[in-house]
Amino acid sequence: MRPPLFEAVPNFSEGRDREKISRLVAAVRTVEGVRVLGVHSDRDHNRSVLTFAGEEAAVLEASIALAGACVREIDLASQTGEHPRMGSLDVLPFVPLEGATLEDAAALARKAGERIGSLGLPVYLYEAAATASHRRNLADVRRGGYEGLAARGRDPLWQPDYGPPELDPHKGAVAVGARRFLVAFNAYLDTDNIEVARAVARKVRERDGGTPGVKALGLRVGGKAQVSMNLTDLEETPLPVALEAVRSAAADHGASVESTELVGLAPLEAILQVARHYLGLRELDREHVLEAALWEER
Amino acid sequence: MRPPLFEAVPNFSEGRDREKISRLVAAVRTVEGVRVLGVHSDRDHNRSVLTFAGEEAAVLEASIALAGACVREIDLASQTGEHPRMGSLDVLPFVPLEGATLEDAAALARKAGERIGSLGLPVYLYEAAATASHRRNLADVRRGGYEGLAARGRDPLWQPDYGPPELDPHKGAVAVGARRFLVAFNAYLDTDNIEVARAVARKVRERDGGTPGVKALGLRVGGKAQVSMNLTDLEETPLPVALEAVRSAAADHGASVESTELVGLAPLEAILQVARHYLGLRELDREHVLEAALWEER
Repeated sequence: MRPPLFEAVPNFSEGRDREKISRLVAAVRTVEGVRVLGVHSDRDHNRSVLTFAGEEAAVLEASIALAGACVREIDLASQTGEHPRMGSLDVLPFVPLEGATLEDAAALARKAGERIGSLGLPVYLYEAAATASHRRNLADVRRGGYEGLAARGRDPLWQPDYGPPELDPHKGAVAVGARRFLVAFNAYLDTDNIEVARAVARKVRERDGGTPGVKALGLRVGGKAQVSMNLTDLEETPLPVALEAVRSAAADHGASVESTELVGLAPLEAILQVARHYLGLRELDREHVLEAALWEER
Repeated sequence: MRPPLFEAVPNFSEGRDREKISRLVAAVRTVEGVRVLGVHSDRDHNRSVLTFAGEEAAVLEASIALAGACVREIDLASQTGEHPRMGSLDVLPFVPLEGATLEDAAALARKAGERIGSLGLPVYLYEAAATASHRRNLADVRRGGYEGLAARGRDPLWQPDYGPPELDPHKGAVAVGARRFLVAFNAYLDTDNIEVARAVARKVRERDGGTPGVKALGLRVGGKAQVSMNLTDLEETPLPVALEAVRSAAADHGASVESTELVGLAPLEAILQVARHYLGLRELDREHVLEAALWEER
């Protein structure tokens, strides 16, 4: 039995200064047992998304190290960018991987929140780590960004879970949460009509009464109507179920799915679900995958 | 770049004496860097199939260690069982895994063959390692088992590639070869009529003009007609192509596929092929699989 693994996907408010970004990522890499899986910086948003993973203690230490480096390196008061932000380290979600539950990730978020609070940053716990239902949704927590949070001032509903109640304009505040692994999955239709993609997105997304755990938008990408999805609960709605919902909704508009794409990483289990579904496999676990068997032994 | 990996799937002529089998497997485990992925012993056949993997040097040393242990532990002259056998260590195929080619596996088979020959066992190279076309097919090499080989005596076409030309009845001879990874994949039909399974098997298998790299038999298993397949070339014929061939052939007999099963291990790439095929993914590589990304980093 290997120890449970977690992923952290911090977003911080620097997407332009490459040297600064390198130093921030280096703060994470110095922690032994942490593997950096991706760094994506956006100049326009002036924001970076870092993905790293490891066992609980390593992910916790790396998160604290990153928070400290963000406070040192990023001056929120002089930061500009298109993306609304409320802190130098802006958002820090923890995601359960192998052997970990969402509750484990929420417990890790609380530990991290407490330590980050002691660095002088107000911390708001969200999603599975939230301490009140009105603070579960990240969009509600960060509404209006730093300025929105400042405007809520002494509202008892919006006091931080950890850290000082006062906002320091140079540091801002951070949202620390726990959520399930999220798979970004896009379906390209055989039409350039964005309205078809929008209608399909409305039909399949949970918000409008569609499929549980599916967020969807209709876009036009590369001259094709694209249904852009986030699958937030792969147990409830695996990839094949989401795709078949899109295929069916597209057919109502005389359209069909021409191709699909996975953006970023997907857990092995999501791929196994696809094979089980379409092959009609009685059983398929990671133990049946040669590389997994090899890796387990290491 | 990690070093190439190989798998060895030795079959040895002992499937009953648990302590003896443990000692034989232990001979493999003592070699550092070798991972034992499976041991399957069959009492009726009095035969065991061992699967292990690792880098070239480790797999080579473990194979030699196993051959030596087989010579010490197994007396072929007193061995009985239903499965035709020609040696104590009977068959030793090498399979290319990550980063390795079939030619690499053939080179490894020749190295192993030479060393096993020097242990006093006549060695016959087969499949991708064969030195003559009439010796490529394992069934031809082992025809008649030990007794068949003994009967061919001094026939110049059947002299061993390595080791002494004389057969020792206590040790026998061993076939050492190289082949591609083989996936065992069975489809259960919605009928109990074995004739339908046999007709489907004839239609899909390469031998009778069907799908390349597909070996198939019609069986009845658990009261269901089953098309039992070995897929020997997943690049040419991936799982979805084999399944669709079975579905189509079954439909010709008014039958359909109710469920399927993978027996043993399948490489990750075989599963990715399934996802690419049925999801219509533009791209899906191991780099997109979270666990693979995690494991690569280790």
